[in-house]
Amino acid sequence: MELVSDWASHGGRQLVCRHASEAAGGEMTFAVFLPPGAEEGPKPILWYLSGLTCTHANVMEKGEYRRAAAEAGVIVICPDTSPRGDAADDPAYDLGQGAGFYFDATQAPWAGRYNMKTYVTEELPALVAAEFPADMDRQGIFGHSMGGHGALTLALGLPGRFRSVSAFAPIVAPSLVPWGEKALSAYLGPDRAAWRRHDAVAMIEDGGRVDEILVDQGEADSFLDRELRPELLERACAEAGIPLTLRRHPGYDHSYYFISTFMGDHVNFHAERLRR
Amino acid sequence: MELVSDWASHGGRQLVCRHASEAAGGEMTFAVFLPPGAEEGPKPILWYLSGLTCTHANVMEKGEYRRAAAEAGVIVICPDTSPRGDAADDPAYDLGQGAGFYFDATQAPWAGRYNMKTYVTEELPALVAAEFPADMDRQGIFGHSMGGHGALTLALGLPGRFRSVSAFAPIVAPSLVPWGEKALSAYLGPDRAAWRRHDAVAMIEDGGRVDEILVDQGEADSFLDRELRPELLERACAEAGIPLTLRRHPGYDHSYYFISTFMGDHVNFHAERLRR
Repeated sequence: MELVSDWASHGGRQLVCRHASEAAGGEMTFAVFLPPGAEEGPKPILWYLSGLTCTHANVMEKGEYRRAAAEAGVIVICPDTSPRGDAADDPAYDLGQGAGFYFDATQAPWAGRYNMKTYVTEELPALVAAEFPADMDRQGIFGHSMGGHGALTLALGLPGRFRSVSAFAPIVAPSLVPWGEKALSAYLGPDRAAWRRHDAVAMIEDGGRVDEILVDQGEADSFLDRELRPELLERACAEAGIPLTLRRHPGYDHSYYFISTFMGDHVNFHAERLRR
Repeated sequence: MELVSDWASHGGRQLVCRHASEAAGGEMTFAVFLPPGAEEGPKPILWYLSGLTCTHANVMEKGEYRRAAAEAGVIVICPDTSPRGDAADDPAYDLGQGAGFYFDATQAPWAGRYNMKTYVTEELPALVAAEFPADMDRQGIFGHSMGGHGALTLALGLPGRFRSVSAFAPIVAPSLVPWGEKALSAYLGPDRAAWRRHDAVAMIEDGGRVDEILVDQGEADSFLDRELRPELLERACAEAGIPLTLRRHPGYDHSYYFISTFMGDHVNFHAERLRR
């Protein structure tokens, strides 16, 4: 692992790291915030999964998570959203590089390197456990949009792994919306039964459970009705008995100006559950 | 004035505006954060002047000022750092576009459009007073690096205009450091006597006064010894009897990871003095 950047910030250190990834078939870059006192002992970790078009850098620069994470003593890890470099790509912003969707592709030309589930839940955690003072028994996960989909599906699919899960404006039912249908078709092929294992609403309908979910959603989000559809998550959680706190915010859009507004609430939500 | 962007954030609105500027001889863009409740009555305003290479956008995206400004009820205005478009320019990052240095140039090819003092202290305040619920009797000013120089020199040069002044890693004595010598020579010509009216340390030596100054400085700032030299401000303030709070922070560099760490302190410093 190579340390690309190391900035003092909010009493801790904001790092950018690069490493050779087997799962993603090439070099991958991720950001790590170490809170003050990280060297004194293992700290809980909080995974932030980013949305379409993002790298590790968007939330690192615009997410405003460091103040709350420093106060709570939580490590925040921000992976990239896809393989990079000479990995397969597509001219559209919502497929290929920048659009890994946090599952493992089975279809050409994506299979072999588009393994973002394996990368985020196996390879990168092993590296993090080896390189940082991380308490792997206390992990939370959250994300934005495509990354909210990632956080929800990974938490639902790995019972016991994450103590807490939340999302900003998540894609909750990718099988039913254009972004998701495009990605699931391309990466997994036409068999919609296989899609259900990577669709939060379908996973809940099929018996997937988490303790509770926090979601913030802007009501002026231009993707709300077409791509996000939080009412589907609301219905699935109600039927399954999963406590969902869905906060709808008039005037807020899909941007980091929205995310950063509620970032402190999310970090604190996780920190409370990771302290237990 | 044209509204380019309007994002809900931290209970208020982050705006980007564009207008035809006479002082800068072309279109200029600036950012305005309106805190919650701005429509109910005039709010104090806080000017943030950015450093070399920046536009209005750097601090807007990375500065993390909105939470504190929303809580304090302060409008934050972030101008650009120079004329743009077909204004004169230089290939170097520290002259021409992105490097306006907050005074009015007298030398070709800069004179006529490089009037950043007039722009920031006359033209833009008139526009702000006309367009926003701003209480022009309660203004504070701060900035970073070249913008810290701007904040200090404008506050010293306009007694009574600003109730409060602070800076992150400011250029305190441009007449004596490479960045400043280059800009002052180019924009004002070789007469060093003229430079003293745009050099904070020289202005204090020549009788300029403000009530007090807050400065944060990273000790791992790579520009510290060559370009910033806060000890010169420390000495000038001590001799002039100006209360200076100079906080030196081990490990911190010149980046927005440093600025954002102490942004809340600065916004609160100004807000307290603007409430009076």
